[in-house]
Formats: sequence, structure tokens, C-alpha cells
Amino acid sequence: MIETWLKETVTSPYDLRRKIIPDGTASVTGALMELCDNARADLILTTGGTGPAPRDQTPEAMQSVLEKELPGFGELMRRVSLEQAPTAILSRQTAGVRGKSLIVNLPGRPASIELCLNAVFPAIPYCLDLIGADRIETDPAKLKAHRPRAETRISNFNTKRFQDNERSFRTRTHGDH
Amino acid sequence: MIETWLKETVTSPYDLRRKIIPDGTASVTGALMELCDNARADLILTTGGTGPAPRDQTPEAMQSVLEKELPGFGELMRRVSLEQAPTAILSRQTAGVRGKSLIVNLPGRPASIELCLNAVFPAIPYCLDLIGADRIETDPAKLKAHRPRAETRISNFNTKRFQDNERSFRTRTHGDH
Amino acid sequence: MIETWLKETVTSPYDLRRKIIPDGTASVTGALMELCDNARADLILTTGGTGPAPRDQTPEAMQSVLEKELPGFGELMRRVSLEQAPTAILSRQTAGVRGKSLIVNLPGRPASIELCLNAVFPAIPYCLDLIGADRIETDPAKLKAHRPRAETRISNFNTKRFQDNERSFRTRTHGDH
Repeated sequence: MIETWLKETVTSPYDLRRKIIPDGTASVTGALMELCDNARADLILTTGGTGPAPRDQTPEAMQSVLEKELPGFGELMRRVSLEQAPTAILSRQTAGVRGKSLIVNLPGRPASIELCLNAVFPAIPYCLDLIGADRIETDPAKLKAHRPRAETRISNFNTKRFQDNERSFRTRTHGDH
Repeated sequence: MIETWLKETVTSPYDLRRKIIPDGTASVTGALMELCDNARADLILTTGGTGPAPRDQTPEAMQSVLEKELPGFGELMRRVSLEQAPTAILSRQTAGVRGKSLIVNLPGRPASIELCLNAVFPAIPYCLDLIGADRIETDPAKLKAHRPRAETRISNFNTKRFQDNERSFRTRTHGDH
Repeated sequence: MIETWLKETVTSPYDLRRKIIPDGTASVTGALMELCDNARADLILTTGGTGPAPRDQTPEAMQSVLEKELPGFGELMRRVSLEQAPTAILSRQTAGVRGKSLIVNLPGRPASIELCLNAVFPAIPYCLDLIGADRIETDPAKLKAHRPRAETRISNFNTKRFQDNERSFRTRTHGDH
């Protein structure tokens, strides 16, 4: 689902890995830190685990992992999901930055995932620019990435980085970035 | 006001208690913990004390009491209240879970209380299911509770619990739950 | 920009100071505390520094400085800014109270500043009343300040206070307040 959406949307080359993490604050925290600090993923998309049930611990892990929380992601994802179901307010999904990685919590239900991706992804390429992650391009026919004009000149000379991460998504470093 | 609204909306049997708490973080914290941990209320609705004035301390108490905050409640209540008055953004109301209790902060002004209840209550029965509280039913002519289909099968076998709480609202445990 | 907007909007007399603070949590924290605790500014409007980039540290300073956060300000400013650009969700702007000072983070881009001021300012005069800051009046032709009727009688007898603050905005204390 997420992979198909990315394949249709992101036109710059990227490596995509997928990882299944058992429920629990420690396991999710560990996996996220590994992806950010060792694998140096540019973008990490999680799915599920954001509800109010005892097993839902993704937000607790996010609190340990994030250096900067970006509350606008969760606000917008809940707002668009509310058009589908009033229970959208039960989601504690958020997003934020750790080092040069952006982590975004997506909902667990497939119908809501696409809705949320369409809502927040237009801001993601510029966010990756700002935090020093790799530059990505999207297919404008599918989704228009917004880069405010005055700041698109920020240069982005990331050195090539190895990665062995899963459940993450990162662009390959190319000379034209 | 709240009681009348509940009487018209909730069709499953419940015990309703009311409690007036003096302003102050310690008093509100103590009352909320007592309602959650001893009285084992399923749902606690507070009213007032969420503004920016020095006497408004409900959110400070919530920070001590909640195990999981559900920011979507406050976001939605502020959004619908904004249609009535621009000062809705001054409200710090939130909601969240402690154990098997859901706590929701309602505003203090009667005109806003009904607006907020109508906005967030459709998500409350399912939230109570998810946290292991008692199951409640609503009159669909008044308010349609939303339970996503795939997850309505979660069983709910709460043992009967005593309660001596006030300002709270809980369903009676019946065999048909 | 902000000064022009205030001049056109606020009709009660005020002293306005402007201050440029270098990026960094410590510098912004120090400047905000000085403005609140020593200069006793009624209203502090910051601009910029709320994004996800490493240099953006205003929200970190806010976390140290605020006694009460008012999340509705950031929610509404992000929501109205989203109508201009999808990257509005990258803003971590917030607002809150320290002592008798209200601090509001505005975005850094001029086009967004006016949008945000128009959105949240209608709630600011009443907020200042509630926290014991000086009373301000606005030109109703430009912007209607909302004061819920039942609570407009709150008296406001602030003693005259000296100030040497900049980047802040406060009313002069007059006998008719």
C-alpha cells in the first residue's frame, strides 16, 4: 500500500526497505533509533500503533526518539481522516525529526493511509531539504511537492551514505542533487 | 447540561455521579486519580478550568494523570468552538486515558459544552471499547457512535466494579456486554 | 510588517519595541525571559525560527519559558497557513503564557505573518484580560476583538510598569483601564 503509493509518486531513485516491529515502546524506540542513527534513513514511515489501546505504543516511542516534533502533521492527518470516520480523533499519530531523518506516523487502516499520505506528502520534500536529508522529486501529475521559492536554493551536498534499514525510505545520492 | 445531554444520548444503563472540585492542580489531580484508580470510572467529563487564567489548572492536572494523551479531542473541540467565538483558541482542553478510564475536558461555557459533546462523542464508545472500559450504546437518532467494522468484535468482559465516584459517568456491567 | 499591522489595528496607546535575537535556544530563552520577567511585556510576538531546520530553536525556547502553553494558537495558524502552502505543517509555532505576558510565535515569511495575525488576534485582547495584562482595544473596522460578555467585567488595575524591552508590545497604563 505505502510502497505502491511511493512508486507512483516519487520519481527520484530511492531504496525502500520494510520492517515489521513487535508492539511495545522499547522495540519501536530501538527500531526507530537504529533507522535514524545507523541506517541514516531520510524518511521513515510507520503504520499503526497510534491508538489509545494498551498495545499502541508508537507515540511513546516517538517521544523518546524525536528531537523536534512537528505537530502539524498529526493535526492535518487527523483532520482529513475525520472526513472518513469520527474515530480519527483517537489517533495519536505525529511526526518529527531526529538528526537528518524525518519520521511520520501513518494510521494502520489502509483506507486512511492513502488519505494521510496525500495530505502531508506535499510538505515532505521541502522538509527533507531543511533537515539536510537527500533531495527527492515527485511526479507533479500525481502530487505536487511544494518548495517555497526563496529557499529552494539551499544546497544539499550529502555524502553518500550506506543503509541497511528497513521500513524506511531514502533517496540515493546522485550528482545532480 | 451534561447530564441532560447524556440522558438523551446514551441508551445503555449507566451510573452518573457529579462532583465539584475546587480550583488547583493538586485538588483536580487528586480527584481525577481517585475517579480512575479507585472508583474505576469508565468516562470522566470535566468542565471548566482549561483557560489561560491563573486559576485554570485542569490541563496541569491532566498532565500528571494521563497515561496517554489524545490530542485529537482538544483539536476538534477548539475547531468547532471557533465557529462560535474566536476566543476558542484560548482553551487548553484535552483528553486522554488513564488505565481503563477516558477523561475528556469540556469547556466551562454551557453553549460550548453541547457543541463539544456533539463533536467528540461519536468516537467515545469505540475508545471505551479499545481501552477495556464498559461498552456503551447511543440512540442513533440523536448521535451515531462509530465503531470501525473490523474491530467491533473485540470482546469486553469487564468484571463488575464498585464505584463511589462523582463527576463521572460509567455504564453498569450487564450480561449482554 | 508586524508594526504596521499593529498600528492599523490597535487603537489603545502602547509602547512597541523591536529586538533581533541570534538563533539558538539559549539566546531566545534568555530574551523571552527578560521580556516577561523584567520588562514585563504584555504581549511578545516572535517571528521565525519555528521550522524543522537545525537553526530553528524558537519552540525549544518556548518549552523552557512558558508556564501555560496555548496549543490552539499554533493549530489555527497552521490551519490558515495551509490555505497558502502545504508546507505550513512544518511550522512548530505555538503560544503561551508566562506570568502576565502572552507570547505568540508568528511565522517568518511576511505573507504568512498577516494571515496569522488576522486569525489569532481577535482572541488576544481577552487573553490579556484573563492573565492580568493591560487592556487593549482594537479598531473594529479592522479587527473585532472578542470578549465573551459574562467576563468583560474583570477589572484590570495594573500598576504602571517600566519597560526597556524590545520585540514586544505593551499598552501604556491609563486611568481609564
